Amino acid sequence: MTIVVSDVPRVDDEVIEGLGHAGVATVHEAQGRIGLLACRLRPIYPGARIAGSAVTVSVPPGDNWMMHVAIEQLHAGDILVVAPTSPCEDGYFGDLLATSALARGCRGLVIDAGVRDVRDLTGMGFPVWSRAISAQGTVKETLGSVNVPLVCAGELVNGGDVIVADDDGVCVVRRADAAAVLAKAREREANEIAKRERLAAGELGLDIYSMRDRLREKGLRYV
Amino acid sequence: MTIVVSDVPRVDDEVIEGLGHAGVATVHEAQGRIGLLACRLRPIYPGARIAGSAVTVSVPPGDNWMMHVAIEQLHAGDILVVAPTSPCEDGYFGDLLATSALARGCRGLVIDAGVRDVRDLTGMGFPVWSRAISAQGTVKETLGSVNVPLVCAGELVNGGDVIVADDDGVCVVRRADAAAVLAKAREREANEIAKRERLAAGELGLDIYSMRDRLREKGLRYV
Amino acid sequence: MTIVVSDVPRVDDEVIEGLGHAGVATVHEAQGRIGLLACRLRPIYPGARIAGSAVTVSVPPGDNWMMHVAIEQLHAGDILVVAPTSPCEDGYFGDLLATSALARGCRGLVIDAGVRDVRDLTGMGFPVWSRAISAQGTVKETLGSVNVPLVCAGELVNGGDVIVADDDGVCVVRRADAAAVLAKAREREANEIAKRERLAAGELGLDIYSMRDRLREKGLRYV
Amino acid sequence: MTIVVSDVPRVDDEVIEGLGHAGVATVHEAQGRIGLLACRLRPIYPGARIAGSAVTVSVPPGDNWMMHVAIEQLHAGDILVVAPTSPCEDGYFGDLLATSALARGCRGLVIDAGVRDVRDLTGMGFPVWSRAISAQGTVKETLGSVNVPLVCAGELVNGGDVIVADDDGVCVVRRADAAAVLAKAREREANEIAKRERLAAGELGLDIYSMRDRLREKGLRYV
Amino acid sequence: MTIVVSDVPRVDDEVIEGLGHAGVATVHEAQGRIGLLACRLRPIYPGARIAGSAVTVSVPPGDNWMMHVAIEQLHAGDILVVAPTSPCEDGYFGDLLATSALARGCRGLVIDAGVRDVRDLTGMGFPVWSRAISAQGTVKETLGSVNVPLVCAGELVNGGDVIVADDDGVCVVRRADAAAVLAKAREREANEIAKRERLAAGELGLDIYSMRDRLREKGLRYV
Amino acid sequence: MTIVVSDVPRVDDEVIEGLGHAGVATVHEAQGRIGLLACRLRPIYPGARIAGSAVTVSVPPGDNWMMHVAIEQLHAGDILVVAPTSPCEDGYFGDLLATSALARGCRGLVIDAGVRDVRDLTGMGFPVWSRAISAQGTVKETLGSVNVPLVCAGELVNGGDVIVADDDGVCVVRRADAAAVLAKAREREANEIAKRERLAAGELGLDIYSMRDRLREKGLRYV
Repeated sequence: MTIVVSDVPRVDDEVIEGLGHAGVATVHEAQGRIGLLACRLRPIYPGARIAGSAVTVSVPPGDNWMMHVAIEQLHAGDILVVAPTSPCEDGYFGDLLATSALARGCRGLVIDAGVRDVRDLTGMGFPVWSRAISAQGTVKETLGSVNVPLVCAGELVNGGDVIVADDDGVCVVRRADAAAVLAKAREREANEIAKRERLAAGELGLDIYSMRDRLREKGLRYV
Repeated sequence: MTIVVSDVPRVDDEVIEGLGHAGVATVHEAQGRIGLLACRLRPIYPGARIAGSAVTVSVPPGDNWMMHVAIEQLHAGDILVVAPTSPCEDGYFGDLLATSALARGCRGLVIDAGVRDVRDLTGMGFPVWSRAISAQGTVKETLGSVNVPLVCAGELVNGGDVIVADDDGVCVVRRADAAAVLAKAREREANEIAKRERLAAGELGLDIYSMRDRLREKGLRYV
Repeated sequence: MTIVVSDVPRVDDEVIEGLGHAGVATVHEAQGRIGLLACRLRPIYPGARIAGSAVTVSVPPGDNWMMHVAIEQLHAGDILVVAPTSPCEDGYFGDLLATSALARGCRGLVIDAGVRDVRDLTGMGFPVWSRAISAQGTVKETLGSVNVPLVCAGELVNGGDVIVADDDGVCVVRRADAAAVLAKAREREANEIAKRERLAAGELGLDIYSMRDRLREKGLRYV
Repeated sequence: MTIVVSDVPRVDDEVIEGLGHAGVATVHEAQGRIGLLACRLRPIYPGARIAGSAVTVSVPPGDNWMMHVAIEQLHAGDILVVAPTSPCEDGYFGDLLATSALARGCRGLVIDAGVRDVRDLTGMGFPVWSRAISAQGTVKETLGSVNVPLVCAGELVNGGDVIVADDDGVCVVRRADAAAVLAKAREREANEIAKRERLAAGELGLDIYSMRDRLREKGLRYV
Repeated sequence: MTIVVSDVPRVDDEVIEGLGHAGVATVHEAQGRIGLLACRLRPIYPGARIAGSAVTVSVPPGDNWMMHVAIEQLHAGDILVVAPTSPCEDGYFGDLLATSALARGCRGLVIDAGVRDVRDLTGMGFPVWSRAISAQGTVKETLGSVNVPLVCAGELVNGGDVIVADDDGVCVVRRADAAAVLAKAREREANEIAKRERLAAGELGLDIYSMRDRLREKGLRYV
Repeated sequence: MTIVVSDVPRVDDEVIEGLGHAGVATVHEAQGRIGLLACRLRPIYPGARIAGSAVTVSVPPGDNWMMHVAIEQLHAGDILVVAPTSPCEDGYFGDLLATSALARGCRGLVIDAGVRDVRDLTGMGFPVWSRAISAQGTVKETLGSVNVPLVCAGELVNGGDVIVADDDGVCVVRRADAAAVLAKAREREANEIAKRERLAAGELGLDIYSMRDRLREKGLRYV
């Protein structure tokens, strides 16, 4: 029941970098408006933008023992994705764990619970997306699992899935879909550049997207 | 049932500017402690302070089609005020819509739902007060209305009402009351300057406002 | 029923300073993971870190009259701790009250309700931990009490208890325990310096804390 | 600023009765899916189903003085609609006020705050839709207004508007629209009887509403 | 840090019975509108009305081990009052613990967390006021304390304090105040009987409480 | 992207019945404390207790078109499991859809959104576990999917998984695990009968479970 899966395949670095560059909103649209974690997860400081491979951690409420187990499983470029088995806002993670995670090459933390030492984490440039900031301490008594599929903030995440996170929130991309999603995200970005210029010049979306006829058919009236 | 009201009177620019200068807390007090939108609306970045005429937009949950319709109705100096017909945190608005709104002279967005591309919006200096930050995409299938009276975050807003927004939140002033409220806000500001100096010098509110007798009558005891 | 307790003993300044230097997470752990106020209290701006003696203020919902009474009771180095008698998010405190509190040497405000004028408070460097930012005005009709024991954000606070507040939240330390808690906090800090270095060098918590045997006994399996 | 509007026109009794008979879901649909109060308002006991004319009451947080003023304004068949000027869950209303309201012919209470004595209210058959059940007492110090337009649970309500409430929630119908909405509600009910029979016999909505072609066009695939 | 206080004085049975008969709303008013637990605590079935002596239980999140320890401390007529050390909605208590508590003469449970087996508890007539109904299981790994002072749903409760609970919620009365509060509650009840009759006969609170002059002075206008 | 999976294997009826008889709390424990949906899902009336095979329905916010598509996929004994793609409390389901679902042999509905016509649904004996009761109407414009894996109230559900629901909430059991979970649930029930008798006779859990030594080792002190 409590297991650690050590051997999880990851996506190629350049695909991950490409998804990180595209950002959450674009990736989410590119894969058909799926995969967004609940917006209760917020960054502890503005401006961070990361992508990496998920190392998932299922933890009991109020118990952060498995965080230590998970850190050993981190490869350079990974992101910790932590979900408690029942809702909890305790502070599972602080500057000591962040120091250890950074030493393993971890790019950040996504947690549907709380974190603490946020001034230190900010100073270290270790980005976190969490449900709460809380100094509430935890115990080390009960086991959980690492790299099992879990639901974090309403979305299924598997070990090795790609996580993209920025000021807009957090999005998960299935490992097998990552390359295809990146291709679509790039198309989308290219397409938006042209539109942005026309919109900036004062052209209306109503005209660029040819919406006027359909609006009239649906019954829109101007008075 | 789905209409666009095109011809909405606005308040004079100098009144609007005066209200913006006074800020939300002062305007709210000056008009008798009414008109404040629910404090779940928060700015996406600190420091913005705007005032303008409301262009109201009633939208279905998860559908941002009407945003494009609304942008055509913007005059320079307007503020978009958006409310979904049932509670929704989806990201109705991002950098493309902001580019278009800015091109029309729009001063900002007040929305009882979500926005995305907040890093871009911050970079553009386009201020937003929203209930959530969410990359969750929307569809374009169902109509709504523009410049009809609507309830946004618990307050009635009409097209052409004055909106004041800053770090303290968002306040609405009826079009017909705007000049009178400005006059009272200015009185209030003048009055506060003197009080601030006395308080800074160590005088107590208990004495400045002559509260001691009334406190005693009400039964306050010092032990 | 509505009283002001004027003569409240405080803890020595150097103990208070020491606790402030240790910060919320360390103090909370040092006293056995107790005393943390609910994490719904958040700072109005990042980076503030204070400690001081509590002047408690029990206030009715929507009524800030007692704030003026409380300010007279402030000694240099005190922190206002305010709790409404039923849940309320109104803006009890703004720049005028902050000016007055600062003139009395107050170090900050902890309030399980709302504050306003947050741009001014930020400019003045007057730190606040609150449940909400709201411009909603209050009346001055009903009394409360000052320096009585009260529950603020889920924790009991007495006048004269030590309050520590930083980006991680707010913690209360009983007056009688303050010196002992400081001693433990310092031990903890000393101990963490060594650990931080080892973790930064890549050593694992699993080894530093000798967890591997106990994990195996509890049934953890690697697959 | 604090006024009582005494002379509010009401809708004819038989229209009100008809709307009450149709119920909230049907009335809400019949008027184009508008007018539903937020679903945080719940009945204190199941099974009540009422309709009546709104007597609106705007109250300060934690202060129920205006309830006594409002009761004098009740006509037989009216419903009290109460909204605090900022969010509050205190118990504004209990068995004494209900006794008084019943003596005036009041049909029930809709309140975006709390009530108490719910066992007594249930025993009296006095229905209430509220945001909370709370024994928290209130004071009588600050005025409000009666029969002014107000926003209750997210919807604008005017004195004399028709309120319909049942186990599904609470809906408001503008006074001027009541007769037309009733006509549409009756059409809707007639229409539903036939459909209910066909559905009960095992016919599918897909066929009754001829949805299959449109689903295919939109891209639905069966696998 | 984890202790069980065995020898807690209780209040006389007849005082407790009297407070239970008065009910939550009356007791809360009689002691000056204090002592009400947050209204998020709701009964699992309607109609229960109990009073008894508190046996307090401080529990870790997601861990119900101490419930077994607490049950041994129950005297006939006691009520369990349980608070987790950080917010938790897990199901700490079900039919087996209720069977055991009933065998010790326990009158009910007040818990700022979750319970399960609510159909069985209802069938047994074992009343519970809880924050949630949840089947989520807990572990038995970490200790807590019994009969220490704790904050439950926002109110301080000591072992031996009197708890009153009914459909309106839960109220705590300090052991030392119980007799005096009962006396005031009885006065209040007597006083209300007369008022209820006058109100039922159609007399207005405005006249019974002589409010008209004061309303006029405060500025109420009828239009 | 929008698909209907028609051919989903179900678990044998007698296994399903056994799980339903065991109930949510027992099944949840029997499978190792996993699979419980978030406790925000509550039954619309007390006393219902069902088990059946999941037909999953992924729906857009505010759009119930797919409900009609899903009903065609129902086999006798199935349970509809509905999740919106972003948080929504609208009323997706009412008496007409329930009539149709009942005609197909559907045993109930689990929905992380709202339902309406709850008086009718109660009268028909059609049980629903929902996040909200809301009459808010929906549109029929945008497609979703049927019998795809989805996350409902925080848990992954696949078409054909077993759903167990009662007054304690809702639990999902993987199709492949159902028989084994039933076996463990029966063991658990047998084991509890004996314990219940001993507890009812006044024996303590401390003794039945031999907890005293371990409590002492962990440091529990009686004072």
